[in-house]
Amino acid sequence: MSKPYVLGIDIGGTNTVFGIVDARGTVIASGAIKTKTHPVFEDYIDELHQEAVKLIEANDATDKIGGIGVGAPNANYYTGRIENAANLIWKGELPLARSLADRFGIPVAVTNDANAAAIGEMTYGAARGMRDFVMITLGTGVGSGIVSNGQMIYGADGLAGELGHVIIRRGGRLCGCGRCGCLETYCSATGVVRTALEYLDASPSVPSLLRNIPGADLTSKDVYEAAIQGDPIAQSVFEFTGRVLGEALADFAAATSPEAFILFGGLAKSGELLFKPIREAFDKNALSFHRGKIKILVSELKEADAAVLGASALGWDAMRAAATNSEINS
Amino acid sequence: MSKPYVLGIDIGGTNTVFGIVDARGTVIASGAIKTKTHPVFEDYIDELHQEAVKLIEANDATDKIGGIGVGAPNANYYTGRIENAANLIWKGELPLARSLADRFGIPVAVTNDANAAAIGEMTYGAARGMRDFVMITLGTGVGSGIVSNGQMIYGADGLAGELGHVIIRRGGRLCGCGRCGCLETYCSATGVVRTALEYLDASPSVPSLLRNIPGADLTSKDVYEAAIQGDPIAQSVFEFTGRVLGEALADFAAATSPEAFILFGGLAKSGELLFKPIREAFDKNALSFHRGKIKILVSELKEADAAVLGASALGWDAMRAAATNSEINS
Repeated sequence: MSKPYVLGIDIGGTNTVFGIVDARGTVIASGAIKTKTHPVFEDYIDELHQEAVKLIEANDATDKIGGIGVGAPNANYYTGRIENAANLIWKGELPLARSLADRFGIPVAVTNDANAAAIGEMTYGAARGMRDFVMITLGTGVGSGIVSNGQMIYGADGLAGELGHVIIRRGGRLCGCGRCGCLETYCSATGVVRTALEYLDASPSVPSLLRNIPGADLTSKDVYEAAIQGDPIAQSVFEFTGRVLGEALADFAAATSPEAFILFGGLAKSGELLFKPIREAFDKNALSFHRGKIKILVSELKEADAAVLGASALGWDAMRAAATNSEINS
Repeated sequence: MSKPYVLGIDIGGTNTVFGIVDARGTVIASGAIKTKTHPVFEDYIDELHQEAVKLIEANDATDKIGGIGVGAPNANYYTGRIENAANLIWKGELPLARSLADRFGIPVAVTNDANAAAIGEMTYGAARGMRDFVMITLGTGVGSGIVSNGQMIYGADGLAGELGHVIIRRGGRLCGCGRCGCLETYCSATGVVRTALEYLDASPSVPSLLRNIPGADLTSKDVYEAAIQGDPIAQSVFEFTGRVLGEALADFAAATSPEAFILFGGLAKSGELLFKPIREAFDKNALSFHRGKIKILVSELKEADAAVLGASALGWDAMRAAATNSEINS
């Protein structure tokens, strides 16, 4: 009999969230650990394993997990490895699927965290019924998952959908990937903070609520809250962030002509503060036949759930693939 | 009995090429007309019909053509219409498939000219066996056809693959589409001429073979020939063109992670003059895991044949679809 649950794991630059998910897409229970605590990758996997096992035992789900699906930065669907992720502290190639399969003794499948979110959105969220859309995740970095003809685009090497590393300002800000001007240096949570610090610096005489916060402690949430309170510098930060993102979406539209862009992550919850400049810049920069036509939507999934649900969908795949292999070999 | 030939038609900004193609992909015979002669679209269709009929009669193929496939700028696979093509003299929406079907009495399917070239390349050329590649056509404009998971990406509206209109220099050159800085204003044949005129203007004291040609008559072929003869201005024009294209390919790689880019059209035949700066700029601008890995190839199809063959593949589809409908309705 096939097992009733899968484990979905979302590995972000800062937090790792995991959840037990049933066949209807309900997250039964979830937990989280910090991603950056362990300098050694296998130590991190050990902690993730221990915490997930605690969650599984607390929910009476031992022996009920049939597969594990993981969304992680630069995780390769084909190889099962994380490959040179700019936003993780471990460098090189990390045997993510194998390390987890060794610990749990359960089949594992992995993909890019943004692809996982896109699969979640397609199955349970704003992209239900859509065959062509682009998921944009605005977190520590900017990720993306491109769905065309109803299929996730993995590319020849399993690493497609890195729209956060499209160069939107040539010779612009230095990115974690070692290149300059990537979209994610402007439109991620950290990009918002960089813009805020630049603006504060450039206009020392303009009063701002943000001046009460030490630069090193400033977060995109602080900038959001100041903007909501009418702070002019914080408002121009969102104006700029939205404009850059709208320009980028206009270019992405020229490529795959999606029905919708779906924005996901903390920043995507900024409402009109972000969406108004995005739409304005999109309509100003898009090809005439895309203007006012391509939807720009907020994710309909709870932030934690989207990635976990998307990852969990891969867990079912892993379970089915293992069952098929076992039949073939028996 | 199904008919042995299809008619493939490639509508370019300057020339329209058409050919009779057999089931093995051999172009039995081909012809061409100028695209810009007739201010009224239906007059153009009349000439195209007359010339194609002459070709068909001369090759004893009357009643042997089962379908017509057409590649044209902004032609929409779903609607059969050309929709606001920047490089054609007729504006608005043009009922391409219907007008041709009315004249010929044969089923018609249409797509973007670059998509047609990609289908041709996938079936008969450098992309045989590839499931993920991007075709870049360097002609009067810059077109593209994106193939992922072995499928042509048409997008939600049938108009995907307009990579020539990705903005590669924000606030850059004015494009035929009404926007500024599109890739095609730099890397098309006309872009090469614009760059040459700019460079000649910017360095009036530098001698150049190109100064012997009146600006209005200058072609990208003139620039190519001068560069081959060692003309420094012409060489820097190719250096710049290749660099801009390499930068663009690096961004496109971040999106769909193809196995290869396949360059097609007159400029693509410029050899190392163009490919060296393309590869250098690609490796400098691409994500680390793409550098030196994604192939940048020249089309393996003869320039005229690629588009005609690609378009012809759609002709077979149109023939089969019509046969199926006729069975259902009989």
